[in-house]
Amino acid sequence: MTEASSSTPALESFTCVIPAGGVGSRLWPLSRANAPKFLLDLTGSGDSLLRATWDRLAPIAPPERVLVVTGVTHRDSVVDQLPELRSENLITESEPKDSSAAIGLAAALLELRDPDAILGSFAADHVIRGDVLFQRAVTTAVQAADQGYIATIGIHPSHPATGFGYISCGRARGDLAPFDVYDVTEFVEKPDAAQAGEYLAHGGYLWNAGMFIARATVLLDQMALAEPELVRSLREIAATWNTERGAEVRERLWPALPKIAIDYTVAEPAAAAGKMVCVAAHFDWDDVGDFASVANLLTRGRGSDLAVLGDGAQVLSDASSGIVVSESDRLVALVGVEDVVVVDTADVLLVTSKSRAQDVKNLVNRMKVTGGGHLL
Amino acid sequence: MTEASSSTPALESFTCVIPAGGVGSRLWPLSRANAPKFLLDLTGSGDSLLRATWDRLAPIAPPERVLVVTGVTHRDSVVDQLPELRSENLITESEPKDSSAAIGLAAALLELRDPDAILGSFAADHVIRGDVLFQRAVTTAVQAADQGYIATIGIHPSHPATGFGYISCGRARGDLAPFDVYDVTEFVEKPDAAQAGEYLAHGGYLWNAGMFIARATVLLDQMALAEPELVRSLREIAATWNTERGAEVRERLWPALPKIAIDYTVAEPAAAAGKMVCVAAHFDWDDVGDFASVANLLTRGRGSDLAVLGDGAQVLSDASSGIVVSESDRLVALVGVEDVVVVDTADVLLVTSKSRAQDVKNLVNRMKVTGGGHLL
Repeated sequence: MTEASSSTPALESFTCVIPAGGVGSRLWPLSRANAPKFLLDLTGSGDSLLRATWDRLAPIAPPERVLVVTGVTHRDSVVDQLPELRSENLITESEPKDSSAAIGLAAALLELRDPDAILGSFAADHVIRGDVLFQRAVTTAVQAADQGYIATIGIHPSHPATGFGYISCGRARGDLAPFDVYDVTEFVEKPDAAQAGEYLAHGGYLWNAGMFIARATVLLDQMALAEPELVRSLREIAATWNTERGAEVRERLWPALPKIAIDYTVAEPAAAAGKMVCVAAHFDWDDVGDFASVANLLTRGRGSDLAVLGDGAQVLSDASSGIVVSESDRLVALVGVEDVVVVDTADVLLVTSKSRAQDVKNLVNRMKVTGGGHLL
Repeated sequence: MTEASSSTPALESFTCVIPAGGVGSRLWPLSRANAPKFLLDLTGSGDSLLRATWDRLAPIAPPERVLVVTGVTHRDSVVDQLPELRSENLITESEPKDSSAAIGLAAALLELRDPDAILGSFAADHVIRGDVLFQRAVTTAVQAADQGYIATIGIHPSHPATGFGYISCGRARGDLAPFDVYDVTEFVEKPDAAQAGEYLAHGGYLWNAGMFIARATVLLDQMALAEPELVRSLREIAATWNTERGAEVRERLWPALPKIAIDYTVAEPAAAAGKMVCVAAHFDWDDVGDFASVANLLTRGRGSDLAVLGDGAQVLSDASSGIVVSESDRLVALVGVEDVVVVDTADVLLVTSKSRAQDVKNLVNRMKVTGGGHLL
């Protein structure tokens, strides 16, 4: 709190944007169309990931400066999770259009409220431990954004993860902050194990946690270089948001927007243009991409432990690794199976292994085509 | 039917005894104290193993010559499964006392009905395919029993099984039957894989299917050599069975009987004494000892197939082996797990592997001590 309360003027106008979208199909059958990943409690804390995200941001930004962008079908669930959320700060999408549109719309609405507004985008479905470290990193990023940069927060890798993208850091930017700020050389895709090991040994590669902090106008202008039509539409939607024409404009423009991740419209081109800086952070971060990640979170990385998630979960096991997720109180008995993943829900039982947990997504994709969509 | 109807006088007085006991704890949680293995349908035929046993014996013995010995708690279930069973042929045990007492009591009751009676004991929870071959083997065994021998039926091994005991065959007994009858040299315990391979290559080792055919009096007299007190008690219980004193005698004697398998009181000593012969049979037989066996039965030994048991079972899998047993119609999804065993019941979910399926028994034993007994 010390760090966060040592506010700069920039921080006082800082607005957090939480894009709450994405089902998280590799977490099926726990995640469903009507129970997306951000509404799940994957840590056993009792809170959904969305709620935990809100609470993490609260010391940085008061409710009037936290926006949530979500699908219209999740509107009620979001309100239920976040009673403090101001109604004018809840932005609903009639259909999902990926992160450029979601964050871009929030930016377009913000720049109308305050031409100097700085926003930070933080996913609703990541897990972070180390709130003070997080707040310090955000504060530093806001300072860089105040200087006109687009800042991201990179996480110092704790192991050679192959499931995350990496940020290649360049020159240290002591002119922006006394430490931990670097130019971004480039964003690199998920590496193989050997390359991940090299990144770890090198020290200058950080996990890309998908956090972007920038002045709203800077972000939109950068996006407009790659997708001018998209940004024009977003600014028109924002300009008419609370007017009589609003609904008509949204209905006309939103469905036609391209689905494209902000990494491609903002982060990569800004890095290439030297406009991107990275704050190197030391808090624990995970995007909880699959059940192996959930298991690692629950056992705090001790792969030799059996992870159990579920209020009434009853597990009897001679195995010393793997994960059981149970929505019921019936007994789950494991005999001689290591690294197994068991997800026990009312209408679907999933059995896989930690090493194959990523492939749940393939099954979900198959079900979309071959039937069983009502279970998704 | 041709074979069975070529009856000898001995076959006309032949009585089948079906000991219906044993929970089958390696098949938990499908098997339970109140749903023992013999009441389960493990083949997907729609019939319990007990019912299938009855139907297999029907061409050999009419209902008045089929006895069932079971625990008092299973009386109603047995009657439900076998409406043709005569009430005087249903023998209930107040508590389980293993096979010497169960089969011995049936023998003691039978020798009172008919001093020359020949009985055959056939477990209620084995699976047999090839009824004509089975009937022919029984007919041959009855002929040997009529000559005063204790006969067993051994199964020609189809593979080097390590889960069964073996019968070592000696001299061919052409004097008893034109073919397929041999002296029993000895009964040997479950071998390791190397020894099982040698047995298979040798040709003179058959699987011990636990079937015994003998004159009731011969069987009891043999048992009396090993356990005189046991046989005296059994004969006293039988003599008073339908008298006023019956209940008192049973209550006094039964609880004190030793728990001992008939292999030790009859089969092994009779073999050592040269009084045991074996009919070598070619039908498919399995004692369905665990879920790996159930899987093999359902896929007819093709380990590369995924076995599914359950009327409404819904399975979606990218695996090509293993077994799913489902008592519900919810979806069981398997991703990247080979040879897995999933047993999905209302109050217990078991996950193990075919290679560790035997160890389910250890878990059950643990639960007896540490709690969870209500789920057994």
